[in-house]
Amino acid sequence: MLPKGFKIGGMRSGLSKKEGKKDLALFVSESPASAAGVFTKSIVKAAPVLIDIERLKKGGKFSAIVANSGCANACTGDKGKKDAENMCSAVEKSFNFEIGSVLCASTGVIGQYLNILQDDLKKSIDLLKGNIGTFSKNEVEAVLAIMTTDTFIKKSDIEVEVKSGKIKIWGCVKGAGMIHPNMQGPHATMLSFILTDAEIESKTLQKILENSADESFHCVSIDGDTSTNDTVIVLANGQSGTGKLSEADLEKFIKAVDELTLELAKSVAKDGEGATKFIEIEVKNTKTKEDAKLIGSTIATSPLFKTAIFGADANWGRAIAAAGRAGVEFDPDKVDIYIGGVHTFKNGIALNFSEEEAKQSLLKKEVKVVVDLKAGKENSKYYTCDFSYDYVKINGDYRT
Amino acid sequence: MLPKGFKIGGMRSGLSKKEGKKDLALFVSESPASAAGVFTKSIVKAAPVLIDIERLKKGGKFSAIVANSGCANACTGDKGKKDAENMCSAVEKSFNFEIGSVLCASTGVIGQYLNILQDDLKKSIDLLKGNIGTFSKNEVEAVLAIMTTDTFIKKSDIEVEVKSGKIKIWGCVKGAGMIHPNMQGPHATMLSFILTDAEIESKTLQKILENSADESFHCVSIDGDTSTNDTVIVLANGQSGTGKLSEADLEKFIKAVDELTLELAKSVAKDGEGATKFIEIEVKNTKTKEDAKLIGSTIATSPLFKTAIFGADANWGRAIAAAGRAGVEFDPDKVDIYIGGVHTFKNGIALNFSEEEAKQSLLKKEVKVVVDLKAGKENSKYYTCDFSYDYVKINGDYRT
Repeated sequence: MLPKGFKIGGMRSGLSKKEGKKDLALFVSESPASAAGVFTKSIVKAAPVLIDIERLKKGGKFSAIVANSGCANACTGDKGKKDAENMCSAVEKSFNFEIGSVLCASTGVIGQYLNILQDDLKKSIDLLKGNIGTFSKNEVEAVLAIMTTDTFIKKSDIEVEVKSGKIKIWGCVKGAGMIHPNMQGPHATMLSFILTDAEIESKTLQKILENSADESFHCVSIDGDTSTNDTVIVLANGQSGTGKLSEADLEKFIKAVDELTLELAKSVAKDGEGATKFIEIEVKNTKTKEDAKLIGSTIATSPLFKTAIFGADANWGRAIAAAGRAGVEFDPDKVDIYIGGVHTFKNGIALNFSEEEAKQSLLKKEVKVVVDLKAGKENSKYYTCDFSYDYVKINGDYRT
Repeated sequence: MLPKGFKIGGMRSGLSKKEGKKDLALFVSESPASAAGVFTKSIVKAAPVLIDIERLKKGGKFSAIVANSGCANACTGDKGKKDAENMCSAVEKSFNFEIGSVLCASTGVIGQYLNILQDDLKKSIDLLKGNIGTFSKNEVEAVLAIMTTDTFIKKSDIEVEVKSGKIKIWGCVKGAGMIHPNMQGPHATMLSFILTDAEIESKTLQKILENSADESFHCVSIDGDTSTNDTVIVLANGQSGTGKLSEADLEKFIKAVDELTLELAKSVAKDGEGATKFIEIEVKNTKTKEDAKLIGSTIATSPLFKTAIFGADANWGRAIAAAGRAGVEFDPDKVDIYIGGVHTFKNGIALNFSEEEAKQSLLKKEVKVVVDLKAGKENSKYYTCDFSYDYVKINGDYRT
């Protein structure tokens, strides 16, 4: 269920070449909202990312997010930026919102211009304005409109009980390929939009989002490819009526945001292009958190490891090989590895484990890998999926 | 043709589980030779790598390299190191070489012990001793014995005319998966052995090898996975009779080594697991050489880019996206990209190129990609291959 004061929806405008595909989504707050965003750290940033960064930097309140699929509006130069601004201004005009109060996001093919005339775009937005709402149907339509190679709708919500009432947080995410978000505060093609009726100032919201992304979206990789368009935006409109949160209540809110972003992030890995399995890689007892993340991400992006899991092969050797090249100093003779719950490697030596038992556990849809370095007290979890024939099929023939 | 004073060969010893597969190779110099080596920089180094590093550090002359396929002898602890030493000592005993004068290398599955009794190994070496030679047949047998998923024999030779005669350099390489060598002087599973009858001291040889590897083996990636066993060893026995080389002749020798290593390195990319295409990525006009290499390697390891090329899709967007996340500062609005000779991207903007022309050029076996940053004067070439269904097939079912 959506938080108070938000209406959302999605429609087909023709921006996507795919016949009948919904491609335009709107997330609207009745009253101006605090906003926070994290965006791709790639040097090559898509036009909507550049626009959002500019607008968030200026500060102030925001009324809506407009997003499209089918075209990333990346590597489109000045015309691209103008097009992104036009997307925002079509919404601003249609709803009579303040200029500069709308944020935007795009996903799809890189290097193509948004192929829609401003008049047609405005007409689409006007039409969509009449079709946004608070129902489950509206949620579904909004998320469908931002999906590309995604195979299922990824959305979630959570309720937080605070002293003076209830706060709702709702979030959605799209992304199945070019997924390895590496984002940074103002300044993921994973798009995620989070709406809440909490009352919270933008600066605090920004900090909460950045910390939360580090433990969720930044711990997910499908193919190691960071996109030009990765975007997470949060709008907080304060309409819960609970007022400014006490420290204790703020902690509760943060916990809820963390829970939601983690669920959304995991759902991205579960819907990885061609994925047959969801893989959780836990790296334990490292000297630093950074060490744990580096090893997790190196294993998660190893094509050899990912194809082994696709083949239900408990090939821990590929996990330790990936760990070894992660750029982290550790003693290989202390390392333990568990694959699918089977202890395969102990203190740097292969164990004589049951290949059959391992195979059976790797035939499940969810696989847990644990790498224990015994070098310190830090831990981190990284989420990914296997690498299948379908990944090659989907990506060998995506653009044409 | 082999340089003077070298005899080589290969046989089946039973070390590989694959029925009938040759798995034991010997590269022997009649007289003790100068030696140089570069090895994986992975924190997880296979036992033979550890042994070689120790032995090369001690210095002195070397008489032979013994190598096996079928078992990487990696993550095998103290027993593994003992096994690697035993491989060397079996050769030392059989040939009456000095203790410590033999180097070793292994490739194959990680985490398994060399499953051969010392007596049987010694018998195999004795047998092989009678079968090494200088003929083309011996070259082929030696290379066959170190191959794993390789589909063709990769060897080459070159002759250098120097003032007082001729120097021969011969080299071979194996490797088709877990290829992204990152090696460093005494301290890939690509194995390469280079033999020359030049007279040259080990220290100079080491420097020449390190520089040469940086422009060849270190510019190749099949899957981004650096191995625990990557090894390049050069033996120089001085039997050409040309004596110590003048500076001008040394330059000629270095040029020849560079030519040979580049050819061997490219052949590795051409034989990438499941590869249908060889890809050369030239990154031009960067501020630093490091920048060019970083961008080249990031594009070369992007699964999205590699699957696009497999699909003969001139998806330059994936190339620029990879470049953008390489960690190099550049102005995206200055970048040009050519794929298969087709100018697809100019000054940060997509060109309206002929998709048909691009497709035709991408259907060829060799694809050239040029990324021009227009930011400086440095250049670098990186070599890789496409990512096909067969990559997934080969690696989803490698170990079992």
